[in-house]
Amino acid sequence: MSDPRGIDPDSTPAVRVVHTAAAVVVGNEILSGKVRDTNVVELARTLRGLGIRFSRVVVVADDCAEIAAEIAALRASHDVVFTSGGVGPTHDDLTIAAAAAAFGVEIVISEAMADILRAHYGARCRDEHLRMARVPAGAWLARVPDSQWPAIVMRDVWLLPGVPEVFRAKLEVIRAWLRGPAPFFTRAVYLATEESEVVSVIDTVAAAHPQVEVGSYPRWEPSDHRTKITFDARESLLVEAACADLLARLPAGEPVRVE
Amino acid sequence: MSDPRGIDPDSTPAVRVVHTAAAVVVGNEILSGKVRDTNVVELARTLRGLGIRFSRVVVVADDCAEIAAEIAALRASHDVVFTSGGVGPTHDDLTIAAAAAAFGVEIVISEAMADILRAHYGARCRDEHLRMARVPAGAWLARVPDSQWPAIVMRDVWLLPGVPEVFRAKLEVIRAWLRGPAPFFTRAVYLATEESEVVSVIDTVAAAHPQVEVGSYPRWEPSDHRTKITFDARESLLVEAACADLLARLPAGEPVRVE
Repeated sequence: MSDPRGIDPDSTPAVRVVHTAAAVVVGNEILSGKVRDTNVVELARTLRGLGIRFSRVVVVADDCAEIAAEIAALRASHDVVFTSGGVGPTHDDLTIAAAAAAFGVEIVISEAMADILRAHYGARCRDEHLRMARVPAGAWLARVPDSQWPAIVMRDVWLLPGVPEVFRAKLEVIRAWLRGPAPFFTRAVYLATEESEVVSVIDTVAAAHPQVEVGSYPRWEPSDHRTKITFDARESLLVEAACADLLARLPAGEPVRVE
Repeated sequence: MSDPRGIDPDSTPAVRVVHTAAAVVVGNEILSGKVRDTNVVELARTLRGLGIRFSRVVVVADDCAEIAAEIAALRASHDVVFTSGGVGPTHDDLTIAAAAAAFGVEIVISEAMADILRAHYGARCRDEHLRMARVPAGAWLARVPDSQWPAIVMRDVWLLPGVPEVFRAKLEVIRAWLRGPAPFFTRAVYLATEESEVVSVIDTVAAAHPQVEVGSYPRWEPSDHRTKITFDARESLLVEAACADLLARLPAGEPVRVE
């Protein structure tokens, strides 16, 4: 049953295929160094697992105009945009207003969300709790069967909370609703050799396998390896071929391991 | 003595006052979720301690044109820009080329940097090591007396490495060379009360102290507090006044603590 405000409280997952994703992280506590962001890496792993290319993250201050501009800019160049933070009940929670501004719509109360909040807070439920039912007009609630809490989605923009435990719970909703066009395959080769000593080998392999993303990462802290070389592509055979090519060109005694 | 390529190998810190900073994080290993970025929080804390407002971070893929565009865009709106990553010797290290493109200059070999690399690697030094002496023409080396390794600076852009241990070593150089116009002062009040229960108090205090940034952060994981309220400003008296105002309005038994 469709809600007159465009919110579908009974929505069941209908997977949508998306190619590219970006994120807006809102932000003062991260930019001031008070908090270490942990949401980006969780989102990155989730999207990678779904085969969605995550190609940009922007961390902005708690500023409504800046958040709105960033949502609008990233929507123009990516299939789906995630925001992290700024969806609580206080004066510094500006992301719902920013998203409404980015879409040129009003903020409305989602009755479906208000029902969820009332059910959760019971007799304690106050107007302040119901501030968390504010959504941009036209937003809908993405849900999964086993979770009480939905994600607020405005077209291609997912408005996620900044609190890490709550953010993490929403990843399950993303996994139920979104998927990339094909999975990513990856291999990692660990070498005891220093990166500078194998530059020409890495460059040769990268040039010979243009469809494979070849990454090279030196490690400076004590470990079993000093260089990690990664291979990524949408096709397993391409990854295996590039990896085999590297292995055939390595100095004696290498690699330490392959994952 | 000035180097003919514009590089000053004997530069000693001459503090420059900057108001705003931004960062470009380069990027595939972070966007694919393989690596959790730790450089942003370290940079954020360093800049906060110096009184420099850090107002934007952009994470981009290993793409020369994208990195160049981001450097150019952030330079236009910030006093100083830091890049993290992409300065090693391999094919996927594109930040030096991107910075050169952003400034419309050539890539040159810094003889001062080559000397440092030769001194470090000794007889093992190869052409591949010397790739790390490539800089945009006009760049200079910011150094501190006690550290062997300089930071490469192209006008207002600091080209920092992505490897966390090496990035961290460069923070000392930043502290020697840059400073904000005035320090930031901060207070944090921890409450056992849930954020939703104190929304109106927080909103009142925030409205009464417009020169103070008031942040409110709910905590969901088990802890001694459920809400953290922060006050930030360039003037200590303003922070103390806003904090005192909040304390006077709290329910009995609060706060848990003030930091």
